Amino acid sequence: MTFGKFALGRNFVARATYDSDLIEFLTAFAKSSEIAAASFTAIGALKYAKLGFYDQEKHEYMETPFSDPQEIACCIGNISIKEGEPFVHAHAVLADRYGNTKGGHLLEGRVFAAEVHVTELLGEKQLVRKKDEITGLALWDL
Amino acid sequence: MTFGKFALGRNFVARATYDSDLIEFLTAFAKSSEIAAASFTAIGALKYAKLGFYDQEKHEYMETPFSDPQEIACCIGNISIKEGEPFVHAHAVLADRYGNTKGGHLLEGRVFAAEVHVTELLGEKQLVRKKDEITGLALWDL
Amino acid sequence: MTFGKFALGRNFVARATYDSDLIEFLTAFAKSSEIAAASFTAIGALKYAKLGFYDQEKHEYMETPFSDPQEIACCIGNISIKEGEPFVHAHAVLADRYGNTKGGHLLEGRVFAAEVHVTELLGEKQLVRKKDEITGLALWDL
Repeated sequence: MTFGKFALGRNFVARATYDSDLIEFLTAFAKSSEIAAASFTAIGALKYAKLGFYDQEKHEYMETPFSDPQEIACCIGNISIKEGEPFVHAHAVLADRYGNTKGGHLLEGRVFAAEVHVTELLGEKQLVRKKDEITGLALWDL
Repeated sequence: MTFGKFALGRNFVARATYDSDLIEFLTAFAKSSEIAAASFTAIGALKYAKLGFYDQEKHEYMETPFSDPQEIACCIGNISIKEGEPFVHAHAVLADRYGNTKGGHLLEGRVFAAEVHVTELLGEKQLVRKKDEITGLALWDL
Repeated sequence: MTFGKFALGRNFVARATYDSDLIEFLTAFAKSSEIAAASFTAIGALKYAKLGFYDQEKHEYMETPFSDPQEIACCIGNISIKEGEPFVHAHAVLADRYGNTKGGHLLEGRVFAAEVHVTELLGEKQLVRKKDEITGLALWDL
Protein backbone atom coordinates (compact mmCIF):
# COMPACT_ATOMS: atom_id res chain seq x y z
CA MET A 1 0.00 0.00 0.00
CA THR A 2 1.87 3.05 -1.28
CA PHE A 3 0.73 6.43 -0.09
CA GLY A 4 2.03 9.77 1.14
CA LYS A 5 0.73 12.09 3.83
CA PHE A 6 0.35 15.76 2.92
CA ALA A 7 -0.60 19.04 4.56
CA LEU A 8 -2.99 21.35 2.76
CA GLY A 9 -1.29 24.37 1.23
CA ARG A 10 -2.78 27.24 -0.71
CA ASN A 11 -6.18 27.09 -2.37
CA PHE A 12 -6.71 28.74 -5.71
CA VAL A 13 -9.81 29.42 -7.71
CA ALA A 14 -9.00 30.14 -11.33
CA ARG A 15 -10.83 31.10 -14.47
CA ALA A 16 -8.95 29.47 -17.32
CA THR A 17 -8.09 31.88 -20.10
CA TYR A 18 -10.49 31.93 -23.05
CA ASP A 19 -8.97 30.10 -26.03
CA SER A 20 -6.07 28.66 -24.02
CA ASP A 21 -5.49 24.93 -23.83
CA LEU A 22 -6.71 23.77 -20.41
CA ILE A 23 -3.74 21.46 -19.79
CA GLU A 24 -1.26 24.13 -20.88
CA PHE A 25 -3.08 26.71 -18.74
CA LEU A 26 -2.88 24.49 -15.67
CA THR A 27 0.75 23.64 -16.32
CA ALA A 28 1.67 27.32 -16.69
CA PHE A 29 -0.35 28.13 -13.57
CA ALA A 30 1.47 25.45 -11.57
CA LYS A 31 4.82 26.77 -12.77
CA SER A 32 4.12 30.45 -12.12
CA SER A 33 2.56 29.75 -8.71
CA GLU A 34 5.29 27.23 -7.84
CA ILE A 35 2.84 24.41 -7.15
CA ALA A 36 4.69 21.09 -6.88
CA ALA A 37 1.76 18.96 -5.78
CA ALA A 38 -1.97 19.55 -5.92
CA SER A 39 -5.38 18.10 -6.52
CA PHE A 40 -7.92 19.93 -8.66
CA THR A 41 -11.40 19.88 -10.14
CA ALA A 42 -12.76 21.81 -13.11
CA ILE A 43 -16.11 22.42 -14.80
CA GLY A 44 -16.94 24.55 -17.80
CA ALA A 45 -16.94 24.16 -21.56
CA LEU A 46 -14.46 23.47 -24.34
CA LYS A 47 -14.48 24.51 -27.99
CA TYR A 48 -12.82 21.26 -28.96
CA ALA A 49 -10.82 18.59 -27.20
CA LYS A 50 -8.81 15.40 -27.43
CA LEU A 51 -9.26 12.44 -25.08
CA GLY A 52 -6.88 9.54 -24.56
CA PHE A 53 -7.27 5.90 -23.65
CA TYR A 54 -4.22 4.00 -22.48
CA ASP A 55 -3.97 0.59 -24.08
CA GLN A 56 -3.13 -1.66 -21.13
CA GLU A 57 -1.49 -4.28 -23.33
CA LYS A 58 0.31 -2.21 -25.97
CA HIS A 59 1.27 0.47 -23.42
CA GLU A 60 0.37 3.32 -25.73
CA TYR A 61 -2.33 5.97 -25.88
CA MET A 62 -5.20 5.89 -28.35
CA GLU A 63 -6.43 9.39 -29.07
CA THR A 64 -9.96 10.52 -29.87
CA PRO A 65 -10.40 14.12 -31.07
CA PHE A 66 -13.63 16.09 -30.72
CA SER A 67 -14.00 19.00 -33.11
CA ASP A 68 -17.31 20.28 -31.73
CA PRO A 69 -18.09 22.18 -28.49
CA GLN A 70 -18.34 20.15 -25.31
CA GLU A 71 -19.40 20.83 -21.74
CA ILE A 72 -16.80 19.72 -19.21
CA ALA A 73 -19.29 17.57 -17.30
CA CYS A 74 -16.47 16.84 -14.91
CA CYS A 75 -12.72 17.08 -14.74
CA ILE A 76 -10.59 15.73 -11.90
CA GLY A 77 -6.84 15.85 -11.81
CA ASN A 78 -3.60 16.33 -10.00
CA ILE A 79 -0.28 18.10 -10.26
CA SER A 80 3.00 16.39 -9.41
CA ILE A 81 6.60 16.44 -10.58
CA LYS A 82 7.66 14.64 -13.75
CA GLU A 83 11.20 14.99 -15.04
CA GLY A 84 11.79 17.92 -12.69
CA GLU A 85 8.79 19.97 -13.84
CA PRO A 86 5.17 20.37 -12.64
CA PHE A 87 3.04 17.92 -14.60
CA VAL A 88 -0.73 18.02 -14.96
CA HIS A 89 -2.68 14.75 -15.08
CA ALA A 90 -6.37 15.27 -15.81
CA HIS A 91 -9.27 13.00 -16.66
CA ALA A 92 -12.57 14.33 -17.91
CA VAL A 93 -16.07 13.52 -19.04
CA LEU A 94 -17.26 15.73 -21.89
CA ALA A 95 -20.86 16.20 -23.04
CA ASP A 96 -22.11 17.42 -26.39
CA ARG A 97 -25.24 19.46 -27.11
CA TYR A 98 -27.50 16.43 -26.65
CA GLY A 99 -25.85 15.51 -23.35
CA ASN A 100 -24.04 12.57 -24.95
CA THR A 101 -20.83 11.87 -23.09
CA LYS A 102 -17.30 10.74 -23.85
CA GLY A 103 -14.54 10.34 -21.31
CA GLY A 104 -10.91 9.55 -20.66
CA HIS A 105 -7.53 11.15 -20.16
CA LEU A 106 -7.76 14.83 -21.14
CA LEU A 107 -4.97 15.37 -23.64
CA GLU A 108 -6.13 18.71 -25.06
CA GLY A 109 -9.04 21.04 -24.42
CA ARG A 110 -9.50 24.45 -25.98
CA VAL A 111 -11.16 26.60 -23.29
CA PHE A 112 -14.48 28.32 -23.88
CA ALA A 113 -14.84 28.81 -20.10
CA ALA A 114 -13.49 26.78 -17.22
CA GLU A 115 -13.69 27.18 -13.46
CA VAL A 116 -10.90 25.44 -11.61
CA HIS A 117 -10.33 24.79 -7.91
CA VAL A 118 -6.75 23.84 -7.06
CA THR A 119 -5.79 22.54 -3.61
CA GLU A 120 -2.05 22.56 -3.02
CA LEU A 121 -0.56 19.59 -1.19
CA LEU A 122 2.59 20.03 0.89
CA GLY A 123 4.60 16.92 1.65
CA GLU A 124 7.79 16.11 3.47
CA LYS A 125 9.17 14.83 0.20
CA GLN A 126 8.16 15.72 -3.35
CA LEU A 127 5.42 13.88 -5.22
CA VAL A 128 7.42 12.60 -8.18
CA ARG A 129 6.44 10.50 -11.20
CA LYS A 130 8.71 7.68 -12.27
CA LYS A 131 8.37 5.09 -15.00
CA ASP A 132 6.50 2.06 -13.65
CA GLU A 133 7.63 -1.16 -15.28
CA ILE A 134 4.37 -3.08 -14.91
CA THR A 135 2.07 -0.52 -16.51
CA GLY A 136 4.52 1.48 -18.60
CA LEU A 137 3.06 4.63 -17.04
CA ALA A 138 4.84 7.40 -15.11
CA LEU A 139 3.35 6.74 -11.67
CA TRP A 140 4.03 8.28 -8.27
CA ASP A 141 7.15 7.12 -6.52
CA LEU A 142 5.64 7.03 -3.03
CA MET B 1 -4.20 34.35 -15.91
CA THR B 2 -7.05 35.26 -13.59
CA PHE B 3 -7.18 33.56 -10.23
CA GLY B 4 -7.83 34.20 -6.56
CA LYS B 5 -6.18 32.80 -3.46
CA PHE B 6 -8.44 31.47 -0.74
CA ALA B 7 -8.19 30.04 2.75
CA LEU B 8 -10.19 26.94 3.58
CA GLY B 9 -13.21 27.65 5.76
CA ARG B 10 -15.79 25.28 7.15
CA ASN B 11 -16.38 21.79 5.78
CA PHE B 12 -19.87 20.42 5.59
CA VAL B 13 -21.18 16.98 4.81
CA ALA B 14 -24.83 17.08 3.88
CA ARG B 15 -27.56 14.65 3.00
CA ALA B 16 -29.79 16.43 0.50
CA THR B 17 -33.45 16.30 1.44
CA TYR B 18 -35.49 13.55 -0.23
CA ASP B 19 -37.66 15.02 -3.00
CA SER B 20 -35.96 18.42 -2.91
CA ASP B 21 -34.34 19.87 -6.00
CA LEU B 22 -30.57 19.45 -5.60
CA ILE B 23 -29.74 22.95 -6.92
CA GLU B 24 -32.41 24.57 -4.73
CA PHE B 25 -31.23 22.52 -1.74
CA LEU B 26 -27.64 23.66 -2.23
CA THR B 27 -28.70 27.27 -2.75
CA ALA B 28 -30.81 27.24 0.43
CA PHE B 29 -27.96 25.54 2.29
CA ALA B 30 -25.50 28.22 1.13
CA LYS B 31 -27.88 30.98 2.21
CA SER B 32 -28.73 29.52 5.62
CA SER B 33 -25.08 28.67 6.37
CA GLU B 34 -23.89 32.01 4.96
CA ILE B 35 -21.52 30.42 2.47
CA ALA B 36 -20.31 33.00 -0.04
CA ALA B 37 -17.72 30.82 -1.80
CA ALA B 38 -17.25 27.08 -1.88
CA SER B 39 -16.34 24.05 -3.91
CA PHE B 40 -18.40 20.87 -3.65
CA THR B 41 -18.86 17.32 -4.88
CA ALA B 42 -21.94 15.14 -4.76
CA ILE B 43 -22.92 11.54 -5.48
CA GLY B 44 -26.26 9.81 -5.15
CA ALA B 45 -29.36 9.35 -7.24
CA LEU B 46 -32.07 11.51 -8.78
CA LYS B 47 -35.69 10.72 -9.58
CA TYR B 48 -35.54 12.94 -12.64
CA ALA B 49 -33.33 15.73 -13.87
CA LYS B 50 -32.64 18.38 -16.47
CA LEU B 51 -29.23 18.97 -18.02
CA GLY B 52 -28.09 21.99 -19.98
CA PHE B 53 -25.65 22.60 -22.81
CA TYR B 54 -24.53 26.16 -23.48
CA ASP B 55 -24.53 26.93 -27.18
CA GLN B 56 -21.19 28.69 -27.66
CA GLU B 57 -22.38 30.57 -30.75
CA LYS B 58 -25.99 31.43 -29.90
CA HIS B 59 -25.12 32.09 -26.24
CA GLU B 60 -28.15 30.24 -24.94
CA TYR B 61 -28.79 27.00 -23.08
CA MET B 62 -30.24 23.90 -24.70
CA GLU B 63 -32.08 21.81 -22.16
CA THR B 64 -32.43 18.04 -22.03
CA PRO B 65 -34.92 16.61 -19.51
CA PHE B 66 -34.68 13.09 -18.07
CA SER B 67 -37.93 11.72 -16.70
CA ASP B 68 -36.51 8.44 -15.40
CA PRO B 69 -34.31 7.72 -12.35
CA GLN B 70 -30.59 8.41 -12.68
CA GLU B 71 -27.53 7.74 -10.58
CA ILE B 72 -25.45 10.86 -9.99
CA ALA B 73 -22.28 9.23 -11.34
CA CYS B 74 -20.52 12.47 -10.47
CA CYS B 75 -21.36 16.04 -9.66
CA ILE B 76 -18.81 18.82 -9.21
CA GLY B 77 -19.67 22.41 -8.54
CA ASN B 78 -19.05 25.68 -6.81
CA ILE B 79 -20.81 28.42 -4.92
CA SER B 80 -20.10 32.09 -5.56
CA ILE B 81 -21.98 35.39 -5.56
CA LYS B 82 -24.23 36.38 -8.46
CA GLU B 83 -26.34 39.51 -8.26
CA GLY B 84 -25.68 39.72 -4.53
CA GLU B 85 -26.85 36.20 -3.69
CA PRO B 86 -25.13 32.81 -3.28
CA PHE B 87 -25.29 31.05 -6.64
CA VAL B 88 -24.77 27.32 -7.25
CA HIS B 89 -23.01 26.19 -10.43
CA ALA B 90 -23.00 22.42 -10.83
CA HIS B 91 -22.10 20.02 -13.62
CA ALA B 92 -23.01 16.36 -13.50
CA VAL B 93 -22.82 13.02 -15.23
CA LEU B 94 -25.98 10.96 -14.79
CA ALA B 95 -26.33 7.22 -15.42
CA ASP B 96 -29.50 5.25 -16.09
CA ARG B 97 -30.26 1.65 -15.10
CA TYR B 98 -28.02 0.26 -17.84
CA GLY B 99 -25.15 2.53 -16.88
CA ASN B 100 -25.72 4.73 -19.94
CA THR B 101 -24.55 8.25 -19.23
CA LYS B 102 -25.56 11.79 -20.07
CA GLY B 103 -23.80 14.91 -18.85
CA GLY B 104 -23.73 18.66 -18.72
CA HIS B 105 -24.79 21.63 -16.63
CA LEU B 106 -27.16 20.42 -13.90
CA LEU B 107 -30.23 22.62 -14.20
CA GLU B 108 -32.61 20.52 -12.09
CA GLY B 109 -32.36 17.27 -10.17
CA ARG B 110 -35.08 15.82 -7.98
CA VAL B 111 -33.26 14.11 -5.10
CA PHE B 112 -33.74 10.44 -4.33
CA ALA B 113 -30.58 10.50 -2.19
CA ALA B 114 -27.49 12.70 -2.44
CA GLU B 115 -24.33 12.95 -0.36
CA VAL B 116 -22.64 16.30 -0.63
CA HIS B 117 -19.26 17.54 0.60
CA VAL B 118 -18.95 21.32 0.67
CA THR B 119 -15.61 23.04 1.28
CA GLU B 120 -15.97 26.72 2.09
CA LEU B 121 -13.44 29.11 0.57
CA LEU B 122 -12.55 32.33 2.36
CA GLY B 123 -11.04 35.11 0.27
CA GLU B 124 -9.87 38.63 0.87
CA LYS B 125 -12.50 39.77 -1.58
CA GLN B 126 -15.74 38.09 -2.61
CA LEU B 127 -15.95 35.62 -5.45
CA VAL B 128 -18.45 37.41 -7.68
CA ARG B 129 -19.95 36.50 -11.06
CA LYS B 130 -20.21 39.19 -13.70
CA LYS B 131 -21.41 39.08 -17.27
CA ASP B 132 -18.51 38.16 -19.57
CA GLU B 133 -18.81 39.77 -22.99
CA ILE B 134 -16.91 37.11 -24.95
CA THR B 135 -18.84 34.08 -23.76
CA GLY B 136 -22.10 35.67 -22.66
CA LEU B 137 -21.76 33.76 -19.37
CA ALA B 138 -21.66 35.12 -15.81
CA LEU B 139 -18.03 34.34 -14.99
CA TRP B 140 -15.88 35.11 -11.96
CA ASP B 141 -14.60 38.65 -11.73
CA LEU B 142 -11.16 37.70 -10.39
CA MET C 1 -31.76 20.06 6.09
CA THR C 2 -29.46 17.44 7.58
CA PHE C 3 -25.76 18.19 7.63
CA GLY C 4 -22.68 17.94 9.80
CA LYS C 5 -19.76 20.31 10.26
CA PHE C 6 -16.29 18.84 10.04
CA ALA C 7 -12.70 19.92 10.45
CA LEU C 8 -10.16 18.83 7.86
CA GLY C 9 -7.87 16.06 9.05
CA ARG C 10 -5.03 14.34 7.28
CA ASN C 11 -4.60 14.39 3.51
CA PHE C 12 -3.37 11.31 1.73
CA VAL C 13 -2.28 10.74 -1.82
CA ALA C 14 -2.29 7.06 -2.69
CA ARG C 15 -1.37 4.87 -5.61
CA ALA C 16 -3.79 1.95 -5.52
CA THR C 17 -2.06 -1.40 -5.72
CA TYR C 18 -1.87 -2.98 -9.19
CA ASP C 19 -4.40 -5.80 -9.50
CA SER C 20 -6.17 -4.94 -6.26
CA ASP C 21 -9.88 -4.17 -6.18
CA LEU C 22 -10.23 -0.38 -5.82
CA ILE C 23 -13.06 -0.58 -3.28
CA GLU C 24 -11.22 -3.21 -1.22
CA PHE C 25 -8.01 -1.17 -1.45
CA LEU C 26 -9.76 1.96 -0.18
CA THR C 27 -11.52 0.03 2.59
CA ALA C 28 -8.24 -1.54 3.75
CA PHE C 29 -6.56 1.86 3.53
CA ALA C 30 -9.27 3.45 5.67
CA LYS C 31 -8.97 0.67 8.25
CA SER C 32 -5.16 0.67 8.45
CA SER C 33 -5.00 4.48 8.58
CA GLU C 34 -7.93 4.66 11.00
CA ILE C 35 -9.98 6.96 8.78
CA ALA C 36 -13.56 7.18 10.04
CA ALA C 37 -14.77 9.91 7.69
CA ALA C 38 -13.35 11.22 4.45
CA SER C 39 -14.04 12.50 0.99
CA PHE C 40 -11.98 11.29 -1.98
CA THR C 41 -11.43 11.50 -5.71
CA ALA C 42 -9.67 9.05 -8.01
CA ILE C 43 -8.55 8.85 -11.61
CA GLY C 44 -6.71 6.08 -13.44
CA ALA C 45 -7.62 2.90 -15.25
CA LEU C 46 -9.26 -0.44 -14.46
CA LYS C 47 -8.77 -3.85 -16.03
CA TYR C 48 -12.42 -4.67 -15.50
CA ALA C 49 -15.21 -3.35 -13.33
CA LYS C 50 -18.78 -3.68 -12.13
CA LEU C 51 -21.18 -0.76 -11.85
CA GLY C 52 -24.45 -0.65 -9.96
CA PHE C 53 -27.74 1.16 -10.40
CA TYR C 54 -30.10 1.33 -7.45
CA ASP C 55 -33.68 0.60 -8.48
CA GLN C 56 -35.60 3.34 -6.70
CA GLU C 57 -38.84 1.31 -6.66
CA LYS C 58 -37.62 -2.24 -6.03
CA HIS C 59 -34.92 -1.04 -3.61
CA GLU C 60 -32.29 -3.34 -5.06
CA TYR C 61 -29.13 -2.93 -7.12
CA MET C 62 -28.89 -3.83 -10.79
CA GLU C 63 -25.34 -4.74 -11.69
CA THR C 64 -23.55 -4.19 -14.98
CA PRO C 65 -20.15 -5.88 -15.40
CA PHE C 66 -17.44 -4.64 -17.78
CA SER C 67 -14.90 -7.25 -18.80
CA ASP C 68 -12.70 -4.94 -20.85
CA PRO C 69 -10.24 -2.21 -19.76
CA GLN C 70 -11.69 1.15 -18.79
CA GLU C 71 -10.29 4.55 -17.96
CA ILE C 72 -11.59 5.92 -14.66
CA ALA C 73 -12.81 9.14 -16.26
CA CYS C 74 -13.84 10.21 -12.78
CA CYS C 75 -14.46 8.70 -9.40
CA ILE C 76 -15.86 10.57 -6.41
CA GLY C 77 -16.60 9.02 -3.08
CA ASN C 78 -16.64 9.11 0.67
CA ILE C 79 -15.75 7.04 3.70
CA SER C 80 -18.03 6.78 6.71
CA ILE C 81 -18.99 4.21 9.32
CA LYS C 82 -21.42 1.40 8.52
CA GLU C 83 -22.10 -1.33 11.05
CA GLY C 84 -19.09 -0.20 13.07
CA GLU C 85 -16.58 -0.40 10.21
CA PRO C 86 -15.17 2.11 7.67
CA PHE C 87 -17.31 1.87 4.56
CA VAL C 88 -16.38 3.15 1.10
CA HIS C 89 -19.09 4.64 -1.13
CA ALA C 90 -17.82 5.46 -4.61
CA HIS C 91 -19.46 6.48 -7.87
CA ALA C 92 -17.57 6.49 -11.15
CA VAL C 93 -17.70 7.19 -14.84
CA LEU C 94 -15.71 4.69 -16.90
CA ALA C 95 -14.57 5.13 -20.50
CA ASP C 96 -13.58 2.46 -22.98
CA ARG C 97 -11.00 2.68 -25.77
CA TYR C 98 -13.32 4.75 -27.95
CA GLY C 99 -14.13 7.15 -25.11
CA ASN C 100 -17.60 5.65 -24.69
CA THR C 101 -18.76 6.06 -21.12
CA LYS C 102 -20.78 4.15 -18.56
CA GLY C 103 -21.44 5.29 -15.02
CA GLY C 104 -22.94 4.49 -11.68
CA HIS C 105 -22.14 3.10 -8.26
CA LEU C 106 -18.69 1.49 -8.36
CA LEU C 107 -19.16 -2.02 -7.01
CA GLU C 108 -15.88 -3.52 -8.21
CA GLY C 109 -12.86 -2.26 -10.13
CA ARG C 110 -9.70 -4.22 -10.77
CA VAL C 111 -6.88 -1.66 -10.65
CA PHE C 112 -4.51 -1.15 -13.55
CA ALA C 113 -3.42 2.19 -12.06
CA ALA C 114 -5.29 4.61 -9.82
CA GLU C 115 -4.33 7.89 -8.19
CA VAL C 116 -6.40 8.71 -5.15
CA HIS C 117 -6.64 11.85 -3.02
CA VAL C 118 -8.26 11.28 0.36
CA THR C 119 -9.25 14.19 2.63
CA GLU C 120 -10.02 13.10 6.16
CA LEU C 121 -12.97 14.76 7.89
CA LEU C 122 -12.99 15.12 11.68
CA GLY C 123 -16.34 15.65 13.33
CA GLU C 124 -17.59 16.04 16.86
CA LYS C 125 -19.62 12.90 16.35
CA GLN C 126 -19.04 10.00 13.94
CA LEU C 127 -20.42 9.99 10.41
CA VAL C 128 -22.54 6.84 10.60
CA ARG C 129 -24.76 5.11 8.03
CA LYS C 130 -28.15 3.85 9.11
CA LYS C 131 -30.96 2.21 7.18
CA ASP C 132 -33.24 4.90 5.74
CA GLU C 133 -36.83 3.73 5.50
CA ILE C 134 -37.86 5.89 2.54
CA THR C 135 -35.06 4.90 0.16
CA GLY C 136 -34.03 1.55 1.61
CA LEU C 137 -30.43 2.81 1.52
CA ALA C 138 -27.92 3.09 4.35
CA LEU C 139 -27.71 6.89 4.58
CA TRP C 140 -25.91 9.22 6.96
CA ASP C 141 -27.51 9.66 10.34
CA LEU C 142 -26.74 13.39 10.64
